[in-house]
Amino acid sequence: MGQVLAETVPAARLAILSGPSFAADVARGLPTAVTLAVADPGHGRALAEQLSGRNFRIYWTDDLIGTQLGGAVKNVLAIAAGIVDGRELGASAHAALVTRGFAELRRFSEAMGARTETLMGLSGLGDLLLTCGSTQSRNMSLGRALGQGQRLEDYLGSRRSVAEGVYTAAAVVSRAAQLNVDMPIASAVHAIVEGKLTVDAAIEALLSRPLKPEA
Amino acid sequence: MGQVLAETVPAARLAILSGPSFAADVARGLPTAVTLAVADPGHGRALAEQLSGRNFRIYWTDDLIGTQLGGAVKNVLAIAAGIVDGRELGASAHAALVTRGFAELRRFSEAMGARTETLMGLSGLGDLLLTCGSTQSRNMSLGRALGQGQRLEDYLGSRRSVAEGVYTAAAVVSRAAQLNVDMPIASAVHAIVEGKLTVDAAIEALLSRPLKPEA
Repeated sequence: MGQVLAETVPAARLAILSGPSFAADVARGLPTAVTLAVADPGHGRALAEQLSGRNFRIYWTDDLIGTQLGGAVKNVLAIAAGIVDGRELGASAHAALVTRGFAELRRFSEAMGARTETLMGLSGLGDLLLTCGSTQSRNMSLGRALGQGQRLEDYLGSRRSVAEGVYTAAAVVSRAAQLNVDMPIASAVHAIVEGKLTVDAAIEALLSRPLKPEA
Repeated sequence: MGQVLAETVPAARLAILSGPSFAADVARGLPTAVTLAVADPGHGRALAEQLSGRNFRIYWTDDLIGTQLGGAVKNVLAIAAGIVDGRELGASAHAALVTRGFAELRRFSEAMGARTETLMGLSGLGDLLLTCGSTQSRNMSLGRALGQGQRLEDYLGSRRSVAEGVYTAAAVVSRAAQLNVDMPIASAVHAIVEGKLTVDAAIEALLSRPLKPEA
């Protein structure tokens, strides 16, 4: 979106706010910490100081790419985390999935120009944790329905809200192929929502990958 | 423990298994992925291949320090995450706490000689996520009780299980001071379990730290 806005509103000074922040938590005044990405650090500091409140803490950065990619890619991984929950694969499998998914998010985003520190921060890891840990997330709920055996069309047909991750999965998988980045989890999500792979076959494929060193 | 064993059983070839794995999940045969730390990579591969099963996947590494520290420090952070839950501060605050806590875990462990990749893997981030995301964790349960206003002695007196994080907090805070590593969350946990800080004062102190850039 930053690139689109730079083309369409070239005079605007972009500031991108992202991070783990359910609207209901912010509205109730519960403690929240988020990332604000602004190209000029002085501008970032000024905005952060003006917009922060006692319980709404803004950390600024000049990494616009990393801040945006964390918020986008996490929606794809949340569908995968939802599938694990819907299939009742257990909390250990969920933690492993999110950890390996975060490695995919990092590989992809770094190849796109993001900085590691941003991805490990609030708009990356933080938002991933919130989204994958809560049923309030639309993408998790979609994944959970798929894991329980519902068909995508039936699920989407019954709601008015949009699960962004369905569309982001296609974009991410296509870009990852161009960049030669391996994303087995995102690819499995894409194949499942495209109807090209069953949930069981996807799980089987992920579990039968060759054993290897961790890093 | 690796250093203790190297001194006391010098002939042993150490292998350290750690990662997000509730015993109940493993016993039920649910998918689990863990880290095995062995100094010699060939030995690591051989052990991983012998010990892995279809649903129990072992990734090997030669980072013994990082593998051990992730499993230790996460218990301290789980107490903090439990306090956030017990105080009903919301899912957004919980995600922010775990994210900033993970930054402390990394700073501390890297200063101790751990590799970043290990900390971002199953025995680091993965175990942190599992422990901070589930009430099955003893440290989370302890934190939750503290967040709800119970006294530490009353809580510990009513159970037979040990919440390791209470003891690890003291060790980590002391070592972090020697290494000049800033760990505000771990320090707050230590002060709370020592009875030197109330939960409310700890939250107030964390929320009133100066605003700053994210990285």
